[in-house]
Amino acid sequence: MTLTNRQLLLQSRPKGLLAPGDLQISESPVPELKEGQALAKVKYLSIDPTMRVWMVADTYLPIVPIGEVMRAIGFAEIVESRHPDYKKGDRVSGLTGLQDYVIIDKSAKTFFQKLPKVPFVSDTVFLGALGTNGLTAFFGMEIAAPKKGDTLVVSAAAGATGSIAGQIGKIHGCRVVGIAGTDEKCAWITKDLGFDGAVNYKHPDWKEKLAAATPNGIDIDFENVGGEIMQEVVNRMNLHGRVVVCGFISGYTKADPNMVSLGTVIVKRLHIQGFLILDYASRFVEAATQLGQWKMFGKLKDRETIVEGLEKAPEAINMLFTGGNIGKLVVKV
Amino acid sequence: MTLTNRQLLLQSRPKGLLAPGDLQISESPVPELKEGQALAKVKYLSIDPTMRVWMVADTYLPIVPIGEVMRAIGFAEIVESRHPDYKKGDRVSGLTGLQDYVIIDKSAKTFFQKLPKVPFVSDTVFLGALGTNGLTAFFGMEIAAPKKGDTLVVSAAAGATGSIAGQIGKIHGCRVVGIAGTDEKCAWITKDLGFDGAVNYKHPDWKEKLAAATPNGIDIDFENVGGEIMQEVVNRMNLHGRVVVCGFISGYTKADPNMVSLGTVIVKRLHIQGFLILDYASRFVEAATQLGQWKMFGKLKDRETIVEGLEKAPEAINMLFTGGNIGKLVVKV
Repeated sequence: MTLTNRQLLLQSRPKGLLAPGDLQISESPVPELKEGQALAKVKYLSIDPTMRVWMVADTYLPIVPIGEVMRAIGFAEIVESRHPDYKKGDRVSGLTGLQDYVIIDKSAKTFFQKLPKVPFVSDTVFLGALGTNGLTAFFGMEIAAPKKGDTLVVSAAAGATGSIAGQIGKIHGCRVVGIAGTDEKCAWITKDLGFDGAVNYKHPDWKEKLAAATPNGIDIDFENVGGEIMQEVVNRMNLHGRVVVCGFISGYTKADPNMVSLGTVIVKRLHIQGFLILDYASRFVEAATQLGQWKMFGKLKDRETIVEGLEKAPEAINMLFTGGNIGKLVVKV
Repeated sequence: MTLTNRQLLLQSRPKGLLAPGDLQISESPVPELKEGQALAKVKYLSIDPTMRVWMVADTYLPIVPIGEVMRAIGFAEIVESRHPDYKKGDRVSGLTGLQDYVIIDKSAKTFFQKLPKVPFVSDTVFLGALGTNGLTAFFGMEIAAPKKGDTLVVSAAAGATGSIAGQIGKIHGCRVVGIAGTDEKCAWITKDLGFDGAVNYKHPDWKEKLAAATPNGIDIDFENVGGEIMQEVVNRMNLHGRVVVCGFISGYTKADPNMVSLGTVIVKRLHIQGFLILDYASRFVEAATQLGQWKMFGKLKDRETIVEGLEKAPEAINMLFTGGNIGKLVVKV
């Protein structure tokens, strides 16, 4: 029986939010496996802000070419294998792309990792808290070097990465304040995750609320948003404050400069560091082990927003920018 | 005999370059010394870009109030003393202000430092290479943590701070390229100071010249200028490059945002650090000793542009922004 593979191809480069047609679904038969190949069925797709960047710019990874399958990280299960490293039933995560099936080829440079079966843990956790987001939060917080009593502010705090970064701050004894865009998100991070404070930046008095929540100023900014929110956080930073630049989602859908004033950098003697977890590949196992332990001991909670259907992936990507998800956003294929 | 003190008072806050009348000269008698005071005759005034900032904004020091003597660092000699720490003939540097005479008061929080007499060294060196500029270059380069073989780019490279930062880079075995605004400045830093390359940013092909001078990319940016020049340097930076933000003179006379793109910060995993030498006061003697040794051994050369007459100080300040000086700019009172 020939399997059919649905693929979301990048047909045009979005301006602002994705428009209908930027990603178009195409169907084609799954080719016969060759020696050295394995076929994996994609079960879940991780929906991340960085995908919007991949659509429009060469950055740390090459731009996705027009007409090709949109790049995405996914969770997949091997359904057939002529590859020496994989057997049927193996579970992997890696750059599956937005499609039903992916062929893992021994001769190609691929990015797949075999995953353990862990009781009481959902498969999707390997895309979020124990996957890219958890690792990003882990290494970003390592750069931030939190000390007991530091005030940490996390933007996009109810997102997949921000929610974990804040909890790591709590583990290190920081006062943690999150910035998010709905009262429901704010309630989640304070009541369920244990943040000391949360500020809904859509309330007109959010700057006063941020000031009230950070009476001793801000020592660490775990920055996911950029733009006006970052400016306000930086304005409240203490001398020698540390800004870990993880992302700037407010700038991904528009030509906002999303910059930091050099005057502030000097006057506050700020230490600003950008990072990508690509540089930490040799330490992924160490970090995931630590994250897993924290999770087992209840110190790291996570939450998922699951969208059903590969064809809904474009809408799901837009949800990131309109604030529609809480926690990890996943498409169930 | 009553002495007359000429003072340059800040009468209006400049927009762009200083206009006539922003600083106005006033004359008044020097008051009788009280117990605990010393009178110092200002000999030389250090003319620094940061003065333009002090005129218009509260930053790391309070804004200079309208009607008060313009803040400046100077070299002065005690001419009369009822202060237990000073005797006639002592030489000091500190915040003298733009005036002929300054009273050093035991009960006030002042910023004066007694200076040694060093043979073969001009008095003005304590304002430049062994003063604020040398210390700024020293601690900025300490933050930069240069390694042998790193490529260091210094902007405003023929200025008082940049010229020393570049030479410290050479001492550490870096490939050093300076950016400056005249061919004469470029010739000075390469032929006299030993920089490996120099780029005149006023030549239309300066970006190509910068690329040619930095064939292995750029590891360290000792940033004094900001704006378009900084952008181009950052564009050529290697992954994990370090940007030491010392100043951004291109932004002091206009409302230029002078920013760094967060996208570049992330993709290049840049480490950006702002600093002020105020934080290093406890190590000034250690640093000045090192700078003095380097100077004695011919590893640190300096040059001065001297403007004669206190009344010329406003013009001298503008020279910083029009590129009129090479090396340390000093007003001889």
